[in-house]
Amino acid sequence: MSFTLNDLPLRDDLRGRSPYGAPQLDVPVVLNTNENPHAPSPRLAKALAEAVADTALGLNRYPDRDAVHLREGLAAYLGHGLTADNVWAANGSNEILQQLLQAFGGPGRTAMGFEPSYSMHPIISRGTGTGWVAVPRDADFRIDVDAALAAIAEHRPSVIFLTSPNNPTGTALEIADIERIARAAPGVVVVDEAYAEFRREGRPSALSLLPDHPRLIVSRTMSKAFALAGARVGYLAAHPAVVDALQLVRLPYHLSAVTQVVAVTALDHADELLGAVDDLRTERDTLVGWLRAQGFSVADSDANFVLFGEFEDRTRVWQDLLDQQVLIRETGPPGWLRVTVGTAEEMAAFRTALLKATGR
Amino acid sequence: MSFTLNDLPLRDDLRGRSPYGAPQLDVPVVLNTNENPHAPSPRLAKALAEAVADTALGLNRYPDRDAVHLREGLAAYLGHGLTADNVWAANGSNEILQQLLQAFGGPGRTAMGFEPSYSMHPIISRGTGTGWVAVPRDADFRIDVDAALAAIAEHRPSVIFLTSPNNPTGTALEIADIERIARAAPGVVVVDEAYAEFRREGRPSALSLLPDHPRLIVSRTMSKAFALAGARVGYLAAHPAVVDALQLVRLPYHLSAVTQVVAVTALDHADELLGAVDDLRTERDTLVGWLRAQGFSVADSDANFVLFGEFEDRTRVWQDLLDQQVLIRETGPPGWLRVTVGTAEEMAAFRTALLKATGR
Repeated sequence: MSFTLNDLPLRDDLRGRSPYGAPQLDVPVVLNTNENPHAPSPRLAKALAEAVADTALGLNRYPDRDAVHLREGLAAYLGHGLTADNVWAANGSNEILQQLLQAFGGPGRTAMGFEPSYSMHPIISRGTGTGWVAVPRDADFRIDVDAALAAIAEHRPSVIFLTSPNNPTGTALEIADIERIARAAPGVVVVDEAYAEFRREGRPSALSLLPDHPRLIVSRTMSKAFALAGARVGYLAAHPAVVDALQLVRLPYHLSAVTQVVAVTALDHADELLGAVDDLRTERDTLVGWLRAQGFSVADSDANFVLFGEFEDRTRVWQDLLDQQVLIRETGPPGWLRVTVGTAEEMAAFRTALLKATGR
Repeated sequence: MSFTLNDLPLRDDLRGRSPYGAPQLDVPVVLNTNENPHAPSPRLAKALAEAVADTALGLNRYPDRDAVHLREGLAAYLGHGLTADNVWAANGSNEILQQLLQAFGGPGRTAMGFEPSYSMHPIISRGTGTGWVAVPRDADFRIDVDAALAAIAEHRPSVIFLTSPNNPTGTALEIADIERIARAAPGVVVVDEAYAEFRREGRPSALSLLPDHPRLIVSRTMSKAFALAGARVGYLAAHPAVVDALQLVRLPYHLSAVTQVVAVTALDHADELLGAVDDLRTERDTLVGWLRAQGFSVADSDANFVLFGEFEDRTRVWQDLLDQQVLIRETGPPGWLRVTVGTAEEMAAFRTALLKATGR
């Protein structure tokens, strides 16, 4: 008899679950995980190599546990008068969210989100023993703020996740709506702004609310606009007291010296890395227009991806695209699919494949 | 009125706590966190830089979520017939331990350790909502196996931590004792072998027990013998079902592409990195002999540090050493201090400072 997962004393709430994650398939057109299609330049690769060579000579020592230099760089990038005291960094925004839930959630407490939204929010909540309350978005994937306030009054969540722009719908929140929810929240409010840099004109970041809302937290990542998904750098901006709280739960030396220097070097090259963001926004708006012209339903997008539908059998469409070497994501509400905005060439391949798959 | 940590809705069990971690002080002789004193060579730094330059060109993409290439390398290093299916890696062994507790501990469950031992075991246990039961070691800092079996029968812990060599005492466990405890354990048994490579002759690793004990887990790190504390690479070896379990709780893409390639490159240079281990073991044994000759009590050490005492006021001795620019660690049982084994020059500075501090 072979020994399997079922023979281990696994926690009951994990039994029967599958690991989270999109398939990592090797196809020519990869548009499934909202990666930035523009690779770092040879010039940046050289700068990163030089920085790592220098850091390598001290790798026998533990890294700066507080990552102060990186946090200074991130604060300068964000602006809004923020300093290192307002900023915390971790291995991807997932670790930021996990640390927030370890500090402010946990057994006996509840987190709330507005679904469909980023599926890691409930997963990390449950992983930290935090209860999860999902409030549905309206038909346009917006948050009904009156319904939100009623749900907050009913459930008194310790942590509220607002996602703007929202994944997988692309929907951005109005600042006034965030502010109403922040005022009503009995605990902390986390505005997940992983895709903030892709917003359309006139959509401000929740960073502007921080001075008046010490329990508001804005999380960000270098994975998307900075094109550094492989480097795993997430961060947040908040009141310094929030940063103090996270230092109680972070694993010591959680962020390697190499990760710190890679991120600092990337920030020094922000112009290059962020240079493609405008092109991607244009490509996104073109894609939304084209999909609508073909008769698809399309959610307004302030992100680097587009949710579109509706399909009676979205799995068939997804598979048909994959058979044509175009990998998108089967996620979001039933009947919808999500495609990441890639290069012009990748989007052309996607359009061709989609027309074929849907017989248009 | 300024807003502080006390104004945040922090979890009750975190209130009043301080962040874990030794002081990161800039003094000439740093012997407080069991770092390896030998920095990577310029040759290795160059190899790391080249590997990172190559990886950098793909950093816009997420890393291999399963870190297969790294796990293959770690399995080959460990030997014992292990393959990538037996190995899992994370950002330092602290993250390995956290993932183990998320899978096998948590609310309503208990972890057990034998103290004094590594203080992160209870901290990470509590951080994951796992109860903690501490069983005292005997006067020689060994585990009294009969007492351990009685405690296991009483508390039925889901996770048992055995630390061999133990931090901060340096004490290694006998394989027969690990085996007795593993047979009695109702859950998983984690043998924390962070310092395994520093063991004295004739002390086998618990890796040899894995084939017969599918609930036994051996955790390791590249921080110590591999002299890569700054790179944050911890790992474990266990039955493949344990690896399956951790994939249910790991944050997706937890290990950056840069960390993966740095670790793989370091494994390719294992001979260089591990070359200093024998010197450090010799230096350690010399230190133990010298301390005993001076009349100090010294715990037998199979690690790259030595616990010695006993002092009526260890804080004064610690401070006196620091005033002489030698930083050691005030940790372990009352009256004892821990010093990391550094270079011959560092140990000479330590000896001189200690004689002065203790008036010998």
